[in-house]
Amino acid sequence: MSNSQKSRTTVDIYGQQYVIVGDESSSHIRLVASLVDDKMREISSRNPSLDVSKLAVLTAVNAVNDYIKIKDQLERLKAELIKEKD
Amino acid sequence: MSNSQKSRTTVDIYGQQYVIVGDESSSHIRLVASLVDDKMREISSRNPSLDVSKLAVLTAVNAVNDYIKIKDQLERLKAELIKEKD
Repeated sequence: MSNSQKSRTTVDIYGQQYVIVGDESSSHIRLVASLVDDKMREISSRNPSLDVSKLAVLTAVNAVNDYIKIKDQLERLKAELIKEKD
Repeated sequence: MSNSQKSRTTVDIYGQQYVIVGDESSSHIRLVASLVDDKMREISSRNPSLDVSKLAVLTAVNAVNDYIKIKDQLERLKAELIKEKD
């Protein structure tokens, strides 16, 4: 994808500003950032002694875990759909 | 889910150890941790000046972004499957 199509969006996550460069719209990037911010605050409230980097790593672990689970669901559903079409 | 079913798995992510408590198997948790570790190293190689907490936040942003995209795919496929069944 050409560089000219990339958006630059400034977001605030856990009190820190980030400039996110990506192919997605700014509104999508702001949604993603707000979900990360929410998740970090949720994990922090359960583990108040965690520093920011550990908190962020655990947030990433959570998100990747959710991703794998939903990817499995998607694969199963795709297989089901192929079976239906046969 | 009862507490007795939770696994405790020690993983290494970006040179730091974490004990992950969850309902998933230890092998699943190790897979998730290795994906997060890979992603952090990939982002770090493209942005060598980032500190660990920013790196981890951007990894979380990436993971949540991937999650939302695949969730959208799943929703579309579910809608397609319902349509097929009608």
